[in-house]
Amino acid sequence: MRSDGRRNDEMRLIKITTDYIRYPEGSVLIEFGETKVICNASVTDGVPPFLKGSGTGWVTAEYSMLPRATHTRNVREAQKGKLSGRTQEISRLIGRSLRSVVDMTKLGERTVVIDCDVIQADGGTRTASISGGFVALYLAFERLVESGEMEENPINDFVAAVSVGLVNDEVVLDLNYEEDSAATVDMNVVATSNGEIIEIQGTGEERPFDRKLLDKMLDTAFIGIKNIISAQKEALKK
Amino acid sequence: MRSDGRRNDEMRLIKITTDYIRYPEGSVLIEFGETKVICNASVTDGVPPFLKGSGTGWVTAEYSMLPRATHTRNVREAQKGKLSGRTQEISRLIGRSLRSVVDMTKLGERTVVIDCDVIQADGGTRTASISGGFVALYLAFERLVESGEMEENPINDFVAAVSVGLVNDEVVLDLNYEEDSAATVDMNVVATSNGEIIEIQGTGEERPFDRKLLDKMLDTAFIGIKNIISAQKEALKK
Amino acid sequence: MRSDGRRNDEMRLIKITTDYIRYPEGSVLIEFGETKVICNASVTDGVPPFLKGSGTGWVTAEYSMLPRATHTRNVREAQKGKLSGRTQEISRLIGRSLRSVVDMTKLGERTVVIDCDVIQADGGTRTASISGGFVALYLAFERLVESGEMEENPINDFVAAVSVGLVNDEVVLDLNYEEDSAATVDMNVVATSNGEIIEIQGTGEERPFDRKLLDKMLDTAFIGIKNIISAQKEALKK
Amino acid sequence: MRSDGRRNDEMRLIKITTDYIRYPEGSVLIEFGETKVICNASVTDGVPPFLKGSGTGWVTAEYSMLPRATHTRNVREAQKGKLSGRTQEISRLIGRSLRSVVDMTKLGERTVVIDCDVIQADGGTRTASISGGFVALYLAFERLVESGEMEENPINDFVAAVSVGLVNDEVVLDLNYEEDSAATVDMNVVATSNGEIIEIQGTGEERPFDRKLLDKMLDTAFIGIKNIISAQKEALKK
Amino acid sequence: MRSDGRRNDEMRLIKITTDYIRYPEGSVLIEFGETKVICNASVTDGVPPFLKGSGTGWVTAEYSMLPRATHTRNVREAQKGKLSGRTQEISRLIGRSLRSVVDMTKLGERTVVIDCDVIQADGGTRTASISGGFVALYLAFERLVESGEMEENPINDFVAAVSVGLVNDEVVLDLNYEEDSAATVDMNVVATSNGEIIEIQGTGEERPFDRKLLDKMLDTAFIGIKNIISAQKEALKK
Amino acid sequence: MRSDGRRNDEMRLIKITTDYIRYPEGSVLIEFGETKVICNASVTDGVPPFLKGSGTGWVTAEYSMLPRATHTRNVREAQKGKLSGRTQEISRLIGRSLRSVVDMTKLGERTVVIDCDVIQADGGTRTASISGGFVALYLAFERLVESGEMEENPINDFVAAVSVGLVNDEVVLDLNYEEDSAATVDMNVVATSNGEIIEIQGTGEERPFDRKLLDKMLDTAFIGIKNIISAQKEALKK
Repeated sequence: MRSDGRRNDEMRLIKITTDYIRYPEGSVLIEFGETKVICNASVTDGVPPFLKGSGTGWVTAEYSMLPRATHTRNVREAQKGKLSGRTQEISRLIGRSLRSVVDMTKLGERTVVIDCDVIQADGGTRTASISGGFVALYLAFERLVESGEMEENPINDFVAAVSVGLVNDEVVLDLNYEEDSAATVDMNVVATSNGEIIEIQGTGEERPFDRKLLDKMLDTAFIGIKNIISAQKEALKK
Repeated sequence: MRSDGRRNDEMRLIKITTDYIRYPEGSVLIEFGETKVICNASVTDGVPPFLKGSGTGWVTAEYSMLPRATHTRNVREAQKGKLSGRTQEISRLIGRSLRSVVDMTKLGERTVVIDCDVIQADGGTRTASISGGFVALYLAFERLVESGEMEENPINDFVAAVSVGLVNDEVVLDLNYEEDSAATVDMNVVATSNGEIIEIQGTGEERPFDRKLLDKMLDTAFIGIKNIISAQKEALKK
Repeated sequence: MRSDGRRNDEMRLIKITTDYIRYPEGSVLIEFGETKVICNASVTDGVPPFLKGSGTGWVTAEYSMLPRATHTRNVREAQKGKLSGRTQEISRLIGRSLRSVVDMTKLGERTVVIDCDVIQADGGTRTASISGGFVALYLAFERLVESGEMEENPINDFVAAVSVGLVNDEVVLDLNYEEDSAATVDMNVVATSNGEIIEIQGTGEERPFDRKLLDKMLDTAFIGIKNIISAQKEALKK
Repeated sequence: MRSDGRRNDEMRLIKITTDYIRYPEGSVLIEFGETKVICNASVTDGVPPFLKGSGTGWVTAEYSMLPRATHTRNVREAQKGKLSGRTQEISRLIGRSLRSVVDMTKLGERTVVIDCDVIQADGGTRTASISGGFVALYLAFERLVESGEMEENPINDFVAAVSVGLVNDEVVLDLNYEEDSAATVDMNVVATSNGEIIEIQGTGEERPFDRKLLDKMLDTAFIGIKNIISAQKEALKK
Repeated sequence: MRSDGRRNDEMRLIKITTDYIRYPEGSVLIEFGETKVICNASVTDGVPPFLKGSGTGWVTAEYSMLPRATHTRNVREAQKGKLSGRTQEISRLIGRSLRSVVDMTKLGERTVVIDCDVIQADGGTRTASISGGFVALYLAFERLVESGEMEENPINDFVAAVSVGLVNDEVVLDLNYEEDSAATVDMNVVATSNGEIIEIQGTGEERPFDRKLLDKMLDTAFIGIKNIISAQKEALKK
Repeated sequence: MRSDGRRNDEMRLIKITTDYIRYPEGSVLIEFGETKVICNASVTDGVPPFLKGSGTGWVTAEYSMLPRATHTRNVREAQKGKLSGRTQEISRLIGRSLRSVVDMTKLGERTVVIDCDVIQADGGTRTASISGGFVALYLAFERLVESGEMEENPINDFVAAVSVGLVNDEVVLDLNYEEDSAATVDMNVVATSNGEIIEIQGTGEERPFDRKLLDKMLDTAFIGIKNIISAQKEALKK
């Protein structure tokens, strides 16, 4: 049994609060246990230069952490004057993941920015950001449809993300910070509702891993993906 | 009567949630109506170079807004690679205000950083930050006292801040965003529980103001200060 | 009596040299005792994006100090690659103060930048900058009127700024560096010729202050404001 | 057949020139067809702060492209004043991959920087960088062993990287630029000589992919990994 | 005799490899002994703002060194976030030198960027960059003429650059790194095929020099200029 | 005759005001006609890392222009967040020139920074900076000798700088801005009192020049150097 009492293939409590912040077109507070991320979707007219006149839209994301989301305080990136490699890497991953389920032609020449601001970090902030960012994006599109600005919601599938890793030689799902620090193999999986992979990133810095373990980690990951998509659907029903 | 139904000298609903974030030494969510600010206090050993060996501590603050705390999205300062003048000005004001009530000798060679992150902005974000930052700071010190790391809480008075302004020729307290945009005179007052001023900043960019109006604005401001300090005391009782 | 022999409500010698630098539309060297600031006004056609097409103009300011304007050398902000919070705060204050007396419609779609470069600093550099910047601005407009580019000078009142503070429990006017370092309360007042306040900024970081002291400081400040405006008028007569 | 005449599971010509640059401890020019990367290993005494006193060393990497390595010229990152997210992501991947096969205790408190500078880019620059960086690192350690500064080479396995993707519904190995632009699924695999995975990164931004395809892509990738490791061994024999 | 066996007025082996990189309009690897620089010319339509509508073109240059082109590793400028004074100074010198022989009217509203990336540095990197950059520029123009995009090659003279210095009281040509470090007087000369000077930069930081020595250094420099221009002509014949 | 009535080999009026700014160890306002530069020398204990423990000192310089020193306003480098290539190039030239006449062993482990701030620019700002910077440096050392902190002034020769150029086919001395803009050949010479060259920088971007012209320009430059050194000696006598 894991330190917080979960089974190896058990997610932490998933909580999705919609309309969390008042002004964004879509806003969500997503919680994976003690990990809490505010995901806000902002829609504006117009697209980046490389898409001008194409009739298609763009979705991008920005990830950030409050300085004291973590056990010890981190210096603000705005203070340092530059984004860390980690921040940019996660921002790019969120953007790529969400773009994969949006029909850019239906979106038209609009840009959506998904801001994922981690207010409390206990592992899995990037997977919570993708999973919550999806709901914020969905809500923003719903609002545009309701107001008649858009004919139909350009999202064509659900997308969720989860982490899986090897901790004490056990494959565990949705690692918290303590487990994440102890993991020898670490993987993030982004997938759709019918079990297709959008992104897979696995690292064995501490110890390489074979394909059998890869398979087992994927099996476990898909259990989590299913749980999260259920929670997303639940949240969107309201 | 004001657009949100308040009397001219009436504060918006003040709500202070303590222990809001799990990891900081002191953490508070403060709400002035729809304005919501997370205030986290982080205590570390050591002081900036100019205080080394002095036996006295330091308190500083950093203010920031989520990109979509406002009606339209603002570009992140970390993305632009620099802090705006407004951000630095407010950070300095918060730090100055909180330092004024801390006995730095009792604090010893420790540094406290107060992070004020606005998650929703409806006017008065700097006054909410000071008022909430005070509670976070107080809580952090309490924790140090409880754990025996500090002999007594080095705070020697309460401090709160409020805005007051001239809107449609009426002096109004605790302006929301709509009122703030329409104000011809705008003032922020930081004060202690016994009505002494720590900082006063008044601007009549649209129209200069005379001393009679200054007096009236101060009278009104002190009503707000009293209300906020009551709320702070209430929050700290729990 | 004060260390430099002045009465408590006495300004240092005010000296305003007009047409100090050859190329700007308006140029002034202002001296408050040993504090010396070059104030240059540069007028260009066009306005920032938020005013385009509005028919109104814009006035902004930039404050800076030579590295060795002070007792010890400061690293250049251009070297550090960023403006300090103090610099930005003062630049914003100067801009706000000068805008308050300009009729932007008469100015038309022009931008005026007031550069205030402190070449020697002995306290009161921001108040000297505002007071000297006003004269540079006035001169620039006069030149535009004389050349027929503008119908009338869009300035509708004089503006000056002065510091006042509590030093050794005495309220003193126009603090020099030594006094500024010893002050427990510190206030800057920007006001017009008829005694109306444009900006008031008072700080009691060392010790809060009551409204009686605030009143006494304001009384003293207005003596200084009058003196400076006399000096400005004298300088503009030539 | 592919546009350049290769079979689907065929690598481009791999060419590894050792001792390419005169001064680095280890230096290699690696070519995957028309992709050419200079990999230089620089060894210095000392480690980053978080390892000081630990007795263990550190390996890190920096990736960059000449402005005209590509079909059209890219603005230099040094000119823009910041590293792109892509550059940082690849640098981190190279570092992580090479660290996985180094016994940091044997390395001792030394830091190795692997600089991977792409002088010509035709797809697969990150996989060529890892594969060539490994040889540069190996050579640097050999030199330290030969000079008696190190007892034994701390590398405990070979590591190589290769790309694989879905182009026109065919799984192809080692994509060139043209194929990379047309790929709907794109994967990079970093692995050891005995077929264990160090890092796997697969993206289906254009179209999600199922586990069957993932398996096929992995099969193909491992053919490439074997070829590259043969070429590495060949190069190191000389 | 010099440490590498050369006579005082003897150049190191000059080697110019044309079409070194595949994609640029003009590309050259130039070697002055162990100094190796990749010079790539990139032609784009359009000119900087100050030339728009003038009908004339622009040539500019950017110089850089790989981190390990030298005996010890240098931190990347992209990592530091700014270009060093040395880098900017050399980039400006290369641009100025090459512009001097281009008829900007014949070039038309096009911009050519010459990237000079030093992959191995053994003294004389700036003179090799100018000399190799010239060939890359010439080749780029030839290509435009061949493709019919330009009527005639706008280059109206050859240009080369060489260093000369006083080492152990001897005037020596084309200093390598060791000599450069020991030189008391150091001079770079940029000149045309008929012996006219485009740029002369001589420094006697260690010890001032008289005009007699200046003359002797110039005599020696022109021997080198002749040699380099021969090599340029040879390379362009192919 | 020249536009301002000077003979071709005639300097503008040289004016050197010593002790111009109150606080620096050495301070000078130097004027070459309408060009005005404040040169301040700041002495501090300690040296840059590469000289620690060497027993020798360091002299460095920083050049800057007020935004409106010129006919039109330039954006501040502190605002842009980086130093231009021109600024860095001139700063390096001033530092190199002044170091050449200082006995660093006599200076001991001290650093002198010479700040050259151009308040009005009419051509020749770099040569005025070197010539004025020398006097500021000399004065700073004199002060250290007088106070007993230094045994003897470590300056071993005078140094001055002047520009010379080809304007309308005439060799002219000490070009003003108008002449500078029209010059086809442009040269700066830094030299000592006995006519030895410390630095020579000549550029014929508009048109290459032969050695006969170089000689004539040098003859003319040395007339200027003599005049400036006389003025320096005169200023130091007081």
